[in-house]
Amino acid sequence: MPIPSPNLYPEFNTVRLSHVEFIVKDLAASRAFYVDTLGLQVSYEDKNAIYLRAMEERGHHCIVLKQGAEAVANVLGMKVYGEEDLDRAKSFFEKKGLPTEWVERPYQGRTLRTRDNFGIPLEFYHKMDRLPPIHQQYKLYKGVKPLRIDHFNCFSPDVDASVAFYSEMGFRVTEYTEDEESKKLWAAWLHRKGGVHDMAFTNGRGPRLHHTAFWVPTPLNIIDLLDLMSTTGYLKNIERGPGRHGISNAFFLYILDPDGHRIEIYCSDYQTVDPDLEPIKWDLKDPQRQTLWGAPAPKSWFEHGSLFAGTEVRDSSLSATPIIAP
Amino acid sequence: MPIPSPNLYPEFNTVRLSHVEFIVKDLAASRAFYVDTLGLQVSYEDKNAIYLRAMEERGHHCIVLKQGAEAVANVLGMKVYGEEDLDRAKSFFEKKGLPTEWVERPYQGRTLRTRDNFGIPLEFYHKMDRLPPIHQQYKLYKGVKPLRIDHFNCFSPDVDASVAFYSEMGFRVTEYTEDEESKKLWAAWLHRKGGVHDMAFTNGRGPRLHHTAFWVPTPLNIIDLLDLMSTTGYLKNIERGPGRHGISNAFFLYILDPDGHRIEIYCSDYQTVDPDLEPIKWDLKDPQRQTLWGAPAPKSWFEHGSLFAGTEVRDSSLSATPIIAP
Amino acid sequence: MPIPSPNLYPEFNTVRLSHVEFIVKDLAASRAFYVDTLGLQVSYEDKNAIYLRAMEERGHHCIVLKQGAEAVANVLGMKVYGEEDLDRAKSFFEKKGLPTEWVERPYQGRTLRTRDNFGIPLEFYHKMDRLPPIHQQYKLYKGVKPLRIDHFNCFSPDVDASVAFYSEMGFRVTEYTEDEESKKLWAAWLHRKGGVHDMAFTNGRGPRLHHTAFWVPTPLNIIDLLDLMSTTGYLKNIERGPGRHGISNAFFLYILDPDGHRIEIYCSDYQTVDPDLEPIKWDLKDPQRQTLWGAPAPKSWFEHGSLFAGTEVRDSSLSATPIIAP
Amino acid sequence: MPIPSPNLYPEFNTVRLSHVEFIVKDLAASRAFYVDTLGLQVSYEDKNAIYLRAMEERGHHCIVLKQGAEAVANVLGMKVYGEEDLDRAKSFFEKKGLPTEWVERPYQGRTLRTRDNFGIPLEFYHKMDRLPPIHQQYKLYKGVKPLRIDHFNCFSPDVDASVAFYSEMGFRVTEYTEDEESKKLWAAWLHRKGGVHDMAFTNGRGPRLHHTAFWVPTPLNIIDLLDLMSTTGYLKNIERGPGRHGISNAFFLYILDPDGHRIEIYCSDYQTVDPDLEPIKWDLKDPQRQTLWGAPAPKSWFEHGSLFAGTEVRDSSLSATPIIAP
Repeated sequence: MPIPSPNLYPEFNTVRLSHVEFIVKDLAASRAFYVDTLGLQVSYEDKNAIYLRAMEERGHHCIVLKQGAEAVANVLGMKVYGEEDLDRAKSFFEKKGLPTEWVERPYQGRTLRTRDNFGIPLEFYHKMDRLPPIHQQYKLYKGVKPLRIDHFNCFSPDVDASVAFYSEMGFRVTEYTEDEESKKLWAAWLHRKGGVHDMAFTNGRGPRLHHTAFWVPTPLNIIDLLDLMSTTGYLKNIERGPGRHGISNAFFLYILDPDGHRIEIYCSDYQTVDPDLEPIKWDLKDPQRQTLWGAPAPKSWFEHGSLFAGTEVRDSSLSATPIIAP
Repeated sequence: MPIPSPNLYPEFNTVRLSHVEFIVKDLAASRAFYVDTLGLQVSYEDKNAIYLRAMEERGHHCIVLKQGAEAVANVLGMKVYGEEDLDRAKSFFEKKGLPTEWVERPYQGRTLRTRDNFGIPLEFYHKMDRLPPIHQQYKLYKGVKPLRIDHFNCFSPDVDASVAFYSEMGFRVTEYTEDEESKKLWAAWLHRKGGVHDMAFTNGRGPRLHHTAFWVPTPLNIIDLLDLMSTTGYLKNIERGPGRHGISNAFFLYILDPDGHRIEIYCSDYQTVDPDLEPIKWDLKDPQRQTLWGAPAPKSWFEHGSLFAGTEVRDSSLSATPIIAP
Repeated sequence: MPIPSPNLYPEFNTVRLSHVEFIVKDLAASRAFYVDTLGLQVSYEDKNAIYLRAMEERGHHCIVLKQGAEAVANVLGMKVYGEEDLDRAKSFFEKKGLPTEWVERPYQGRTLRTRDNFGIPLEFYHKMDRLPPIHQQYKLYKGVKPLRIDHFNCFSPDVDASVAFYSEMGFRVTEYTEDEESKKLWAAWLHRKGGVHDMAFTNGRGPRLHHTAFWVPTPLNIIDLLDLMSTTGYLKNIERGPGRHGISNAFFLYILDPDGHRIEIYCSDYQTVDPDLEPIKWDLKDPQRQTLWGAPAPKSWFEHGSLFAGTEVRDSSLSATPIIAP
Repeated sequence: MPIPSPNLYPEFNTVRLSHVEFIVKDLAASRAFYVDTLGLQVSYEDKNAIYLRAMEERGHHCIVLKQGAEAVANVLGMKVYGEEDLDRAKSFFEKKGLPTEWVERPYQGRTLRTRDNFGIPLEFYHKMDRLPPIHQQYKLYKGVKPLRIDHFNCFSPDVDASVAFYSEMGFRVTEYTEDEESKKLWAAWLHRKGGVHDMAFTNGRGPRLHHTAFWVPTPLNIIDLLDLMSTTGYLKNIERGPGRHGISNAFFLYILDPDGHRIEIYCSDYQTVDPDLEPIKWDLKDPQRQTLWGAPAPKSWFEHGSLFAGTEVRDSSLSATPIIAP
């Protein structure tokens, strides 16, 4: 199936991905990982939850960690352009027959809870508490110096269907991998905010959250994080990288939090604000699409993901692991 | 005068700044500067003109250099979201009593030529020839490894009036400097594409173009350029920097091309896509707004700029040079 | 066998490793690799040979490439402190019953050719033609911006014996890996010039040259080289890395030249000039000794090496591949 | 006066500069500067003194801070190669008619206290307490990530005489500035350990300590320090830089501690172990010798220095400030 033309005038205006909520089994261990090691800043914490933001963010939170029995992803949050976009979003999802409800979320204004076509729990809001800037309080910078949340990547059992759905919402495909035989999409990267992606889908048993990415200043910050993690007991949490992605051209590192939620540390992709930006197509057999420098990803990277709370998963009709050219 | 509220639903949708056209007196000297030293890529050249793009750009040009008798800036180019935005733009400028005309520009679609409230020549287009990606042809990277055009900065004789005009066009103020006594704006940074600015205005005899900026990967690329320029005959073309701006938080270097057109090399400002992003206010007496590390800018930086072709300049009613705290 | 005490007053004074001579089967292909890709500078070339130096070197050559039928390493070159050290070296090797002869080498003064205890061909000289500095001719910097040759690493069939021999020559062990069971050395790093090593030995069929290393300014230059090689046809020449070594703490990349001679790109080890610097011991079962971040080296890295011209190899009595903890 | 030929076989063998002892007027303020801001590690502290080392050093201290009434430099420390070099050093200084005595210094073995030809207090030792390596304890890295002490730079009232004295001690000149008219040395850089310098002399009222330098991994660490200092109350402690020196080719920053002792943060000079390395000569009128990129040093940098305890200063016969070409 060819990738859909971008919907330049969607029914409602999503500005960007905003935040993720993780259930974690040991809040103290998660705090050591996200705060002491990655360097995210605590906006609020009590014994049941921690709200975090990155260094250049003024919204209250980009990650919410909640103590719980099962390590799942509760919800993916999105920010819309105006209050009225929330109502338009509600109408959009209702017309699709998808569940919608207004929910109360701390530090956020009116919040719409819904699910995408495969059941990924989504929450849209316009207003979030705004905090004073800290990006020039350099004494606070630690760990990998995370600047902002960058994107989500999800396993989808049918990437064509996922891309069609988000394209209708105005997400624009920047790069994609096609299975040359079936002509079905293997993976696709879609953006709203002007980078390579706010959301990506990869073929696999899903929906599941593959990873959540944070933007950092330079590759040297990623090297610093590797040095830190490998000498502070987090050696086994390093899963893949560092490397350069063919797709997105970004410099990357994949790490796992204490519950196995995957985090990507990411920098140096490119600007995509032009509405007529041509998507870049990659061949599934080209190993450089994953790592420009040729190193293969480990098996776990193709298989492991976080479940979404209360969301059923199904197998993909395509094979579960891409055939990598030798 | 307080800064205006952002106009979230402007009459027409400007995506981003796009390109600048410079008249240069010695095209070969300019080529040595922009191509051999900065590392911009030639999209087209003949004996009268050179069209250049940066490494991650797919539009045909971000700088046009034309041989001429007088070193001036001919026009600032802007890209709009859709074809219909061109007609809406025409109407917008006509209602202001400003000149508009459809002009032919090589490699561009329908192009609207007009002027802003102080006479800055502007050209809006939607379509520009799209070129194949070169951002992964690493053998082409040279000089400072310029990735994309980032912003314009202009002297304005009345920054409040300039900001009001561009705000009506949907540009949103991210940071500004106010003169505490007169309560007038000294300088302001306004964006469309989600960085700190596409356009900035600084108080001074104007309108004149203060500088055109290019985004580069990291501060080390700027250090590389300094090493290169200082050992290849461009020592006197280094005007200010390197340093960290207080405003924008960017790492910067200002250099002058062979005709005195000022170029800023720039990286690491922050994302500004939230429509409710609060502008940051700086005190005119705070020297860290200019250079976080305290080093003052040289006198030339406050005084020198490029004239716009066929555009009359006037003095500002505020003093010509900011009083810097000792 | 415990590592020997450093011989602080050796019979002759070796300043540093100096150069390597490779026989290559296609001189043009080697030139494309070493000059156009790595960025080494040509001191002299004709159709049979190319002499290269790195950016901060003033000696005439650190690599000599010679066209030939079989891809071997001809000789490892060492610089001694004074002319008289050459005579003392001759006496030292003669007393060991090792072959010595005075040979003529272009661009070098009096040169002593000999072999170490396992037959590695060594040449010692004091004087080499000195060239004008180019380290501030920044327009010449290309590729990985190689600054200087850093070290050799050789397979040895008996690392204890190799270390004893070079220790007597005044090389000082900085780090080493011991096989906990046999108490034999698995690998050792020895220096003369004040870094982690001028020469290292690793257990294996030998003597063979495992790699020759070049020092570069920062890890970002190594990332640049990876980007360049992976997009200019050298993808398969990337063997291992980038990563941080546990041993030496250096940031590294291993690549193979067109003939399979292995080159390490290396930076950021530490200063070792103190004569009482304590060697650091690593456990053979600790995978972080090789890569601090945990990624294993590929099999080829443990097995492949360059033969020395006219030198017989023998198997090691220890197993050929280290047992890596899972 | 021409620079002296290097004395390749000096009477005693100095390995490297080792440490400096500063009297500071507010030990807590100095701790905030050296430990919390620069990131040096505390080896020992009590209410009267703090002993510090840098991240890759295994000797006990590279800076000793002592509470006192007057901010002076007490002594410059040097490490010699063997115990017997201490006796040879004693003999060397005695033959010059300079004062010598054996002194007790905590954490050091036998220590010789003496003075150079202009009265700079020097202490030579061979043994210092050795501490466990911390260079791979990455959680300890903070501030500018200082790796090791690199060099001293002193004002001398007669640079020719200083250079002659240290040359006799085996220090080798790597670069120098000559006053073309008087043919006298304006400044010179001399090394023992294989970098551009362990000790440098600059013309001026002296002897006084101009600065003490620390080596850091990359220019980005210097940028990090600038960001940190300029947002934590140390803005006025930033004196000069960042920049590239023409002489030494190093990337530098000069800062002042709370008592005005000047510290240089320094990286990326070059290797100088070759005994026949040709010194590089710079013209006093060439502004690029100081800053390759052309920015002049501030007046304070030419005039201010730390007095040595109990040491008389005298004026230089040359003018006090170099004439900088406009």
